[in-house]
Amino acid sequence: MTQKPKNKEVLKIIPLGGSEEVGKNCTVFEYNNEIIVLDLGLDFANEETPGIDYILPDINYLKQNKNKIKALIISHGHLDHIGAIPYLINDLGNPPIYGLPLTMGIIKERLEEFNLDKKTKLNVINLDQVLKFKNFKISFFRVNHNISDSMGIVFETPVGRLIHTGDFKIDLTPTDQKVIDLEKIKRLGQEGVLALFADSTNATKSGEAVSEKVVAEMIDKLFGQIKGRIIFTTFATLVTRLQEVIYAAEKYGRKVMIAGLSMEKTCRVAIDLGYLKVKEGTIIWPNKMKKIPPEKLVILASGSQGTENSAMARISLGEHRLVTAGKGDTVIFSSSPIPGNEYAIHKIMNALIDLGVKVIYEPLFGIHASGHANKEDQKKIISLIKPRYFIPAYGEHVMQAAHAETAKETGVLEKNIFILKNGDVLEINKNKEARVSNEKVSSDIVLVDGFGIGDVKSAVLNDRKILADSGIFLIIVVLNREKNKIINLEIISRGFVFMKKSEELINEAKKKINKISEKYLAAKGKEKNRNDFKNKLSLQIGDFLYTKTGRRPMILPFIIET
Amino acid sequence: MTQKPKNKEVLKIIPLGGSEEVGKNCTVFEYNNEIIVLDLGLDFANEETPGIDYILPDINYLKQNKNKIKALIISHGHLDHIGAIPYLINDLGNPPIYGLPLTMGIIKERLEEFNLDKKTKLNVINLDQVLKFKNFKISFFRVNHNISDSMGIVFETPVGRLIHTGDFKIDLTPTDQKVIDLEKIKRLGQEGVLALFADSTNATKSGEAVSEKVVAEMIDKLFGQIKGRIIFTTFATLVTRLQEVIYAAEKYGRKVMIAGLSMEKTCRVAIDLGYLKVKEGTIIWPNKMKKIPPEKLVILASGSQGTENSAMARISLGEHRLVTAGKGDTVIFSSSPIPGNEYAIHKIMNALIDLGVKVIYEPLFGIHASGHANKEDQKKIISLIKPRYFIPAYGEHVMQAAHAETAKETGVLEKNIFILKNGDVLEINKNKEARVSNEKVSSDIVLVDGFGIGDVKSAVLNDRKILADSGIFLIIVVLNREKNKIINLEIISRGFVFMKKSEELINEAKKKINKISEKYLAAKGKEKNRNDFKNKLSLQIGDFLYTKTGRRPMILPFIIET
Repeated sequence: MTQKPKNKEVLKIIPLGGSEEVGKNCTVFEYNNEIIVLDLGLDFANEETPGIDYILPDINYLKQNKNKIKALIISHGHLDHIGAIPYLINDLGNPPIYGLPLTMGIIKERLEEFNLDKKTKLNVINLDQVLKFKNFKISFFRVNHNISDSMGIVFETPVGRLIHTGDFKIDLTPTDQKVIDLEKIKRLGQEGVLALFADSTNATKSGEAVSEKVVAEMIDKLFGQIKGRIIFTTFATLVTRLQEVIYAAEKYGRKVMIAGLSMEKTCRVAIDLGYLKVKEGTIIWPNKMKKIPPEKLVILASGSQGTENSAMARISLGEHRLVTAGKGDTVIFSSSPIPGNEYAIHKIMNALIDLGVKVIYEPLFGIHASGHANKEDQKKIISLIKPRYFIPAYGEHVMQAAHAETAKETGVLEKNIFILKNGDVLEINKNKEARVSNEKVSSDIVLVDGFGIGDVKSAVLNDRKILADSGIFLIIVVLNREKNKIINLEIISRGFVFMKKSEELINEAKKKINKISEKYLAAKGKEKNRNDFKNKLSLQIGDFLYTKTGRRPMILPFIIET
Repeated sequence: MTQKPKNKEVLKIIPLGGSEEVGKNCTVFEYNNEIIVLDLGLDFANEETPGIDYILPDINYLKQNKNKIKALIISHGHLDHIGAIPYLINDLGNPPIYGLPLTMGIIKERLEEFNLDKKTKLNVINLDQVLKFKNFKISFFRVNHNISDSMGIVFETPVGRLIHTGDFKIDLTPTDQKVIDLEKIKRLGQEGVLALFADSTNATKSGEAVSEKVVAEMIDKLFGQIKGRIIFTTFATLVTRLQEVIYAAEKYGRKVMIAGLSMEKTCRVAIDLGYLKVKEGTIIWPNKMKKIPPEKLVILASGSQGTENSAMARISLGEHRLVTAGKGDTVIFSSSPIPGNEYAIHKIMNALIDLGVKVIYEPLFGIHASGHANKEDQKKIISLIKPRYFIPAYGEHVMQAAHAETAKETGVLEKNIFILKNGDVLEINKNKEARVSNEKVSSDIVLVDGFGIGDVKSAVLNDRKILADSGIFLIIVVLNREKNKIINLEIISRGFVFMKKSEELINEAKKKINKISEKYLAAKGKEKNRNDFKNKLSLQIGDFLYTKTGRRPMILPFIIET
């Protein structure tokens, strides 16, 4: 795995994250001595990373080439595109960051939390701006997505024009009135585009995406019908959705209380920047809530993804400081589960129903619209751009493979479609020939756990998985060297069996340990090998416990000689 | 929580499992000194039960009343309806089991594995049979579901007629030609039904369920188009689907090899009983596979749910003994993910795509049909039966609440709808008045882990969760009593930090431990409290590690005095 490019007259595109998952998006565009980085996001823990807070892209390659980095461009303000900035921006040598106003407002808020706002160069751009570098001329176009100020990026490079859509959908009736710039996309396509990188998230979903207007109308309808208190939850960054709730609340004479830190933050930033329009007096402080009758109140709560300790989770458990939910309340989940969160979300919904709450959610109500283009819209974009090369970006390979099929249907040649892994280097030379290089750059996952970044490695995760599966079984043997005998033997287990009910098992294990220990004590000279003794304890007791219980706890033997 | 019924002239219905989840279905019907049990299923582990194999219903109530149990009736052969039989049938006093032929064939196969087939009284029934007990007259009606021989149950009781649908859908064109008996259902409805218990699994899905015929046609179409080898995976018990694959294979001249134990078992039982019709020579042994060209082969593999070590999982990892997948192969997932399995399934699909395999799956292809009725079909059944009381059965409360709404739409009064928790006792008296009793019977979850049933309790699970989250940190302090000094101090952690890179942290911790230990050694008389010493180590070192790392591993201090 070498980290040095061989040929300088070649454009390299390297996805460091986001090309095998939905999350931790980060793509490198490199020509000669210039690197432009697109997005620097995080991913959330999954089944293979127990106990982890976040997953970051591996930026080793960028660290080694940080003097080349000219800009970090951010397509929009979601955590999977901005979340790694506070953790990694220093390692990149603090390059200037570029993005539209809301995006930069959200980034600024986060950097302040990390005390990094002074160090970092934030550049608010507008959609007509062009960023010029030696080898790159970069411009932008508006896209729809479920956060305002989302954009696609156009790279004019020495080998040709590239387009990256960022996350996008086509919404001809978005509620913020800002429609994807299909005219510009069409014009770029007519002029010619060498390579298109496009959002694959919903490539396995047929048809077209639902418009945000449909959701806004449903919110209005529900607010007109619901009699009691409304608790409304959605993605905290979905500003347009929050706006729809504010409008509906104002129309039907409800006050809005915000519950949850992430929701509060977005509202603050969005109101400051004019992205959220709220009449004086609509939003109320918690201390005013008691005075408002339920039918005049909306609680805007975070936790639509079932996150532990979120406002919604605490409300469902009856543990929220301010909000006690029950009969007469209606909770609206204006969201869909991010894969992996289904269990946690259902747990909250079930608990709410047991409290007597009416719960409204997808799919029975049209109360959410995804921010990503479905197959038909993806087809439209590829058809307008007509790229020579097509690279399904952002998403798992199962999604990218579906996106590749769609591209083929529009006429892109199969040999011109590249499904990349994180760390793959796509090279395009001056003859406009593209190939995936044999070189690959480092593309591990970097784990954030507590205050540690990257100090939890696969060994630690493997241990956690074993511990989660069958627990731990500790054996402490205290030997007296002089008397050559066992003076103490302690066993303790956690997460293995219920110790109080397993006396017989523990006693049998003790007998076996004694036997193994006596053999060790009886051995002489070279035969008396301590490591060997420990290994025997691990193996033989491990096998014994497996035979008896069908489980394989982690065995940890300690020999203490006094 | 008393276990004694007060009033004998009352019909009691008690869901012991399945009324707060999709899984471990078991419902008790009791009148006077007679109990009829419907289904005895298991559930799979979830996020809250790490390392667990299965979850069983709590049958404490049945154990205490086992002399009353007259029959265990099984609605169909899925694991969530039969899976707990081998574990619990002894505890129930081995009552006679009743079910249709395929159901009983599958149960017999499972009981043989557990060496219980001789002890257990298996009664194969037919749909026209009536089982007569003192207080219950029980008859049956055919339903559609994604296993053959699924049935609904009619209980004639001293208080009136009850119907339980079991798992069901309405499929007017099923591929086994056996349509749900709507005539009988309608007739029962016209005669009058006191209470209906109905499958809620798909209550949140609108419209009608897809017919199996649609899937069969898609299988035929794909088999006609696909050039290379086909690897086909689906639920192992979905016999009708397996039949469609066999038919398509025979039509297009392909041989079928079966990969995976569960798939082999179903095929054996289903062929034996005539539920799977296979021409001589269609199914081949693995040793014959090499001689068959890829385009003449179908591999029928288990693992559609992403189970670890399943045939599909091993194929995707390139670890299968017989099947190496790659370019030219097509894998068909004829299934939908059971909630919670999405991650594992996607992992397999992504890996297959990286091997160059073409993967076909829902929702882009109409290659699966659920076995459960959607909202419109549920509405049809409730409308035909017109029960006074409606109890949404089988499913999470979020599904049951949706089903309750549907029932209301058909005219069932809200006060006559009961959403029950596991362990709730629904009583119906001779005046046909129904209410949920204040008594509740024991309804814990019983965990199967390895060979242990019920020996893993919440304490063990909590430990596993802590261990999975942040690992374990062991402190061993060896003290010499005579010299009143520390002679050894060992620290080891697993799943917490990467020890080799955390020397500084460990050294600092050691210093702190030494200090705490010295205070203990210096103390005299009552002040010298060993438990207190241990608690201090746990708390202070726990806090120290949290301050340094942001993580809270399980701290286990050992004091060894010599």
